Amino acid sequence: MKVLVINCGSSSLKYQVINMNTYEVMCQGIFERIGLEDSVLTHKNSLKGKYVVKGNFSNHKDAINLVLETLSDKKYGVVNDINEIYAVGHRVVHGGEKYSKSVLIDEEVLSYLEECVKLAPIHNPPNIIGIRVCSELMPNIPMIAVFDTAFHQTIPEVAYIYPIEYSLYENYGIRKYGFHGTSHKYVTQKLGEVLNRDIKEMKIISCHLGNGASICAIKGGVSIDTSMGFTPLAGIAMGTRSGNIDPSISTFLIEECGYTAEEANETLNKKSGVLGISGVSSDFRDIEKAALEGNKRAKLALDIFYYRIRGQIAAYAAHMGGVVDAIIFTAGIGENSSITRKACLEGMNFLGIDIDNNRNNVRGEIGEISAEASKVKVFVIPTNEELMIAKETLEVILA
Amino acid sequence: MKVLVINCGSSSLKYQVINMNTYEVMCQGIFERIGLEDSVLTHKNSLKGKYVVKGNFSNHKDAINLVLETLSDKKYGVVNDINEIYAVGHRVVHGGEKYSKSVLIDEEVLSYLEECVKLAPIHNPPNIIGIRVCSELMPNIPMIAVFDTAFHQTIPEVAYIYPIEYSLYENYGIRKYGFHGTSHKYVTQKLGEVLNRDIKEMKIISCHLGNGASICAIKGGVSIDTSMGFTPLAGIAMGTRSGNIDPSISTFLIEECGYTAEEANETLNKKSGVLGISGVSSDFRDIEKAALEGNKRAKLALDIFYYRIRGQIAAYAAHMGGVVDAIIFTAGIGENSSITRKACLEGMNFLGIDIDNNRNNVRGEIGEISAEASKVKVFVIPTNEELMIAKETLEVILA
Repeated sequence: MKVLVINCGSSSLKYQVINMNTYEVMCQGIFERIGLEDSVLTHKNSLKGKYVVKGNFSNHKDAINLVLETLSDKKYGVVNDINEIYAVGHRVVHGGEKYSKSVLIDEEVLSYLEECVKLAPIHNPPNIIGIRVCSELMPNIPMIAVFDTAFHQTIPEVAYIYPIEYSLYENYGIRKYGFHGTSHKYVTQKLGEVLNRDIKEMKIISCHLGNGASICAIKGGVSIDTSMGFTPLAGIAMGTRSGNIDPSISTFLIEECGYTAEEANETLNKKSGVLGISGVSSDFRDIEKAALEGNKRAKLALDIFYYRIRGQIAAYAAHMGGVVDAIIFTAGIGENSSITRKACLEGMNFLGIDIDNNRNNVRGEIGEISAEASKVKVFVIPTNEELMIAKETLEVILA
Repeated sequence: MKVLVINCGSSSLKYQVINMNTYEVMCQGIFERIGLEDSVLTHKNSLKGKYVVKGNFSNHKDAINLVLETLSDKKYGVVNDINEIYAVGHRVVHGGEKYSKSVLIDEEVLSYLEECVKLAPIHNPPNIIGIRVCSELMPNIPMIAVFDTAFHQTIPEVAYIYPIEYSLYENYGIRKYGFHGTSHKYVTQKLGEVLNRDIKEMKIISCHLGNGASICAIKGGVSIDTSMGFTPLAGIAMGTRSGNIDPSISTFLIEECGYTAEEANETLNKKSGVLGISGVSSDFRDIEKAALEGNKRAKLALDIFYYRIRGQIAAYAAHMGGVVDAIIFTAGIGENSSITRKACLEGMNFLGIDIDNNRNNVRGEIGEISAEASKVKVFVIPTNEELMIAKETLEVILA
């Protein structure tokens, strides 16, 4: 049973075909610069190697057409006929308040996703285009939407309602939605498997630390709070995003610094975070290197990143009654930076957290990094959003 | 030795004369609607009772003139001659990065306060007017500025630098300043007296919960972090202020809801917080009543208020290494609402916090409300910003 996973952005498209009997990735690829000059498709068959096509692909339809041709290519493909694809799982960023689970896509779903565009103006439109084009090109194959927000729909009112006029929630849907849900869900389930414990009986804090970063409090197997909010700008500091700051800074930039609202948003989303503080890079490897070489602002950027994560972990511990069973680190930085993991848990022994420095030398693979005596188990668990999307896709069809 | 304390707002002016030998308030008053029709001065001599003057006072000079006349009034006054006032302490909201202590006011100080106007456009201008008018009317009496921000100038970079472009700090002074400093300092010192302990050896979390609300982490006797930020809008939810929210909400209000930047600011400052959620009131007595009567949004407003305070307390505990020595509640709600105090510490036993319900029945007076066995001492300590300003005023002169 082969599932195609599609993550369609405004000018890029990522995909994987996963064999759902073995969870093997049969092929994966990325189509870049769709709609721009010099578009390029880089396809990789796990057994037969890489295949690159360059050209000018002016729209998503032409691009997806080439992807589908490639999937059934005699040499680099993974199917003889595209109808061997059992189902297509689409990553959709925003499912609003309606979808707390993955869903089989029909016109009703699509029209709700259109409604959600105002909540995710950058991400949802290309997601929708991807779905429409795939539906047209593969009319006999079921399409499933898997939402970044769905896992967080269990968050209670006390955490998702903002202390602002209630009518702004009612009329405009301004509330906490949370993102990275597929990732937090995946690593939480994986932790249950690794520990051979029922996650419904556990309290877990999941730290997804990539260029975008969010922390999630999981109790009884469900998300009860997360650091991202109405948009992915909120929460802890990130590669280029500010995370939570005094909300008057946004208006100060407009009223006192001459920014437009769009420029203010752009600054807080793309020029802030550790990039903004350090002035060096949004890549933690660059910043760690600069900090080691004595760059004070690079060191400050890292310290602020860690500081805010520690505060967030402690707050979520409190919201779950203090003692948690496990903390998970995942995504680029979480999986690979032992420095970050150590620093984010520094001085947290009062919560029963004790890291083993040797165990912490793990990179990109599952590993327990807490000391034997640590009350809280701390794990590195590489995330796999594509596999999670494929699994959910199958679940919807088989339900 | 009599010190006059002045808190000058845009259309109101509060004052007290304090006998610094006994710390007795000799008289206090409030001048309302300055510059508007039907201005009214309500003066209260602690021994001789109340005195009210109505009229039209079109500017601060006329108003302050009347206050000074009243202070030396034969019946309701407290001095025979205004020159008996030893010094005047002015509450100044924003002292920028320059003032980490109270300071004797001269032209240099005033010109720096003018510079700070862009940081506190609502509060600093009337503070400056009050200083200028008093200097003119009492040319022989020293004037001292006591800043709301000064106590927080010990906060380290890791807590005061925002994860935004560093140049916004350098060019516009966008950083965390913190407010309510005079109050946090007062109650912390008072706690030291009550416990007969050196606050330099303690870790304390001070919760100033009034219509404006902030929490402060105090280690070694100095502020190391506080929940208010660049402006008093940041931090926990308040009576009418949102506190921290996804910063993109500010720009969403402008781009999608048709607000101007000023209106967005106004909404987040004056129509948000527990008022915004509940739709009932910004007064906790009204909200508690409505919640008891079954108003769900009133209950939600309170729950959100408590929830965010618990998260903030836990974060500050983490930033001080976990176990704190004491938690203080102060200001209107903190001093009077036993419901709030209990709810804000619910489920926090993991931090060694244990409230005694009987002891918690204290209102408006100093009292320990923690159980005998509680590792963390929890105290109600009524704040007294005026006395603190008077003390600082004297300290500056006698230094």
